[in-house]
Amino acid sequence: MNRPGIHLKLRRIGIDTFKENVAYLHRDCPVYHTEGFQALAKVEVNSVKNHQQVLAVLNVVNDGGIMAIDELGLSEQAFEQLGLKDGNMVCIAHATPPESLDAVHRKIAGECLHASDYLSIIKDVVGNRYSRMEMSAFLVACSESGMEREELLYLTEAMVETGEKLDWGEPLVADKHCIGGIPGNRTTMLVVPIVAAHGMLIPKTSSRAITSPSGTADTMETLARVDLDLKDLHDIVRRERGCLAWGGRAKLAPADDILISVERPLSLDSPGQMVSSILSKKVAAGATHLLIDIPVGPTAKVRRMNDALRLRKLFEYVGDRLGLHLEVVITNGEQPIGRGIGPALEARDVIKVLENDPDAPSDLREKSLRLAGRILEFDPDVRGGQGYAIARDILETGRAMAKMQAIIGAQGVNEEPYVRGALVMEVVAPESGFVVEINNLQMARIARMAGAPMDKGAGVDLLKKMGDKVEAGEVLYLIYAEFPSDFDFAVEQTKKDIGFRIGDNPPAPRYFPPL
Amino acid sequence: MNRPGIHLKLRRIGIDTFKENVAYLHRDCPVYHTEGFQALAKVEVNSVKNHQQVLAVLNVVNDGGIMAIDELGLSEQAFEQLGLKDGNMVCIAHATPPESLDAVHRKIAGECLHASDYLSIIKDVVGNRYSRMEMSAFLVACSESGMEREELLYLTEAMVETGEKLDWGEPLVADKHCIGGIPGNRTTMLVVPIVAAHGMLIPKTSSRAITSPSGTADTMETLARVDLDLKDLHDIVRRERGCLAWGGRAKLAPADDILISVERPLSLDSPGQMVSSILSKKVAAGATHLLIDIPVGPTAKVRRMNDALRLRKLFEYVGDRLGLHLEVVITNGEQPIGRGIGPALEARDVIKVLENDPDAPSDLREKSLRLAGRILEFDPDVRGGQGYAIARDILETGRAMAKMQAIIGAQGVNEEPYVRGALVMEVVAPESGFVVEINNLQMARIARMAGAPMDKGAGVDLLKKMGDKVEAGEVLYLIYAEFPSDFDFAVEQTKKDIGFRIGDNPPAPRYFPPL
Repeated sequence: MNRPGIHLKLRRIGIDTFKENVAYLHRDCPVYHTEGFQALAKVEVNSVKNHQQVLAVLNVVNDGGIMAIDELGLSEQAFEQLGLKDGNMVCIAHATPPESLDAVHRKIAGECLHASDYLSIIKDVVGNRYSRMEMSAFLVACSESGMEREELLYLTEAMVETGEKLDWGEPLVADKHCIGGIPGNRTTMLVVPIVAAHGMLIPKTSSRAITSPSGTADTMETLARVDLDLKDLHDIVRRERGCLAWGGRAKLAPADDILISVERPLSLDSPGQMVSSILSKKVAAGATHLLIDIPVGPTAKVRRMNDALRLRKLFEYVGDRLGLHLEVVITNGEQPIGRGIGPALEARDVIKVLENDPDAPSDLREKSLRLAGRILEFDPDVRGGQGYAIARDILETGRAMAKMQAIIGAQGVNEEPYVRGALVMEVVAPESGFVVEINNLQMARIARMAGAPMDKGAGVDLLKKMGDKVEAGEVLYLIYAEFPSDFDFAVEQTKKDIGFRIGDNPPAPRYFPPL
Repeated sequence: MNRPGIHLKLRRIGIDTFKENVAYLHRDCPVYHTEGFQALAKVEVNSVKNHQQVLAVLNVVNDGGIMAIDELGLSEQAFEQLGLKDGNMVCIAHATPPESLDAVHRKIAGECLHASDYLSIIKDVVGNRYSRMEMSAFLVACSESGMEREELLYLTEAMVETGEKLDWGEPLVADKHCIGGIPGNRTTMLVVPIVAAHGMLIPKTSSRAITSPSGTADTMETLARVDLDLKDLHDIVRRERGCLAWGGRAKLAPADDILISVERPLSLDSPGQMVSSILSKKVAAGATHLLIDIPVGPTAKVRRMNDALRLRKLFEYVGDRLGLHLEVVITNGEQPIGRGIGPALEARDVIKVLENDPDAPSDLREKSLRLAGRILEFDPDVRGGQGYAIARDILETGRAMAKMQAIIGAQGVNEEPYVRGALVMEVVAPESGFVVEINNLQMARIARMAGAPMDKGAGVDLLKKMGDKVEAGEVLYLIYAEFPSDFDFAVEQTKKDIGFRIGDNPPAPRYFPPL
């Protein structure tokens, strides 16, 4: 259907369309009519001189102020990908649908796909040949009951293969990952210095908060620079045996970021998608030994022990086949871990634990020691069951703190000390009794309303935890905010639900397998 | 998460983003930062003064030439929907996801949905509260095995309820529909004048070609104006008892067009989606009696008799529950119907049949009479089995031609006579024997390459049909084109596959139930 030879002048259009490439064509451009293009159609834009090509969705421009009739516009990302200059000559053609869409249709029809199908789908995704609509179709076809665990392995392998891979040149590269959903819970910032102080390599990269009040990268950023390039990352890890960096710089498993950009707005988060997302990133980051933390609780991501066990088996199946040494721990996720929720407040908790401050939150300390202990036992020289004691020793002798300071120094200390927001509100117990429930979701919501993670000092500080006895009017937690409008929103939110439930009797303890 | 009160100046951005609303915000706009908006996020744009609101996907603009920092841009359709003027004050907020997405997630998880679920989903779709990604998720979850036929009924009802509905004020309003896929096959242009000449009301609206070389509206347009507004349509139908118009003007079952804008690029065409799309449009158009034509053949849309029967039952189930008098006929779709493929060539065939020209294609004549006969039997005064004879009588006495001329006159005769493309190429038999196969898909492809349906005179003219005896070198068909580049593409395409297969023996006749 193409008439070759109609050349247009390339123009960068200053519009950021995120992960979707958009091409802009003027309505009066002759090509628009003779070729029968339609808005939203997929087109390929080719360099006239060489083989550079980019795929994009077409938008039709009616306004000569945006672009001229003889121009072909590209959104920011598409322009970068094509790699040409403003004014270079290009031509435009109907894009043939990616061949791998055939496999997607087989998946929609309920078939199992082969490893080669997943590889070709993911290659096309990374090559920007899929529209968001098409990715949505693929993800929904793969979600829930749609995928055999063997297929999950193929998908994960394809996601690793289509990106870069870090190589640390050592046989044991440790990593940890929590599936998330529990406010506070900054165990990574304690596990890394403990494990690195032991001498085990743990080059930890973390994400920023997406829907939570703080990610490890946000909290660490109150203490040190986290936006490291790959060279700095390597240097620091070689010197200190560990780091606590933001992972956004490396192009590891790029398919994951693209698929997440569709999964998130759709709220698609099937167990399979979680497993392939986490494991592909970890394998690409060069991890050989991995500890996965699955918190379970009524307001956690995973709510029933059965679901946690099923998820654990999925992680184990795929992890083993990928050649990872993978362990999964199921932990108590019935309430926030630590006291602070929000970057600066969480950093304060971490520092208190490292300083062996008797006032440090004991749940954060204990969980971190247990997790660090399990990782230390990846070391063949550590006897099974001894990891916890070693971790505790590293913490209590101050070696963990010293290592944390070294890592902070190496990454670049944040000279501006963190401050809690100046606006404070006390939330008190409406009646006397015992704290029988703290809602993770509601506490996270209140902290976000207060401004976390963007305002580092904003968030929630818990003074009471589950099982504590309280008198009516006693303070349960404090809300900190930096801006009045945020503060008002957070306070408003507590009026709907304070996130705590008070009962006449202490809550029954839940049993969790020992770590 | 909203800070109310930051007002922006509305600006129409001259970009047509088709069925997806897009809002444009300058990267340096204060709202962009304080509110934590992300490109591709869904936002709601609200009038500051009243309750007008529109939902859109956010694009971020880096170029002050496109819009200013204190402005909020909307793409063409979104601007129209909001109904405000350039410069009016608006504010922008994170859109809450449509509540009906919850039902979509239940569908993805494999649940059956209730009538109220489908209604709320389709209301949100029509209200532009769904992104294309979300529609894709819904459609894939509903496709293939995903839907009970009861659910299909709910979906169809929801699509009817969320649009306008025509009322012809008569107890018998006939309509026909072919599921498509067979080139030529312009029976509608014969059925309508025959049925209308009998006095039965048949207000036929048709679509233009989407992926085929011509739709009924394209072919009719070579003879008469088809782009009628609703008032003209009513006047003409009241006077002539029938019409042959383009259906794009009325807002009937608008959800259908929106869903199709996602189904088409995804090549999603499950039987359920076909049934709900066709029946919702017909019920909204006020039809009470409907004949559905399902052609079956190795290169038709439906390839096996079993699939045709399954589809027929689906049509019957939903049609009966909607209160339609619905009949389904399964017809021979193993080759094109008539000789011409392309608007002007097909119109020529139709006129020849109406003129009772002995040279008229007999398959087109016969099929049209059979279909018209079945529709005439919707008339309680027509005895079962007599419809065909009545239809033949109407055709042979010239009353069908007279009615067609009256309809053309009423709609507005096209004064420019159609002309076949000036460029002609003969495609000849590579060997002697019998024509044992004509590939519908390949013939359609060649006709489209030649320029159909945009170039009215372009297309293919078949001189041989299945069963015909041919000598090597004898002409099988002619290709007509208006432009040299199209012509070259079409000729190139025949080199890959001429679309005909020649065998030593005539093809075995296939049995089809009599109409």
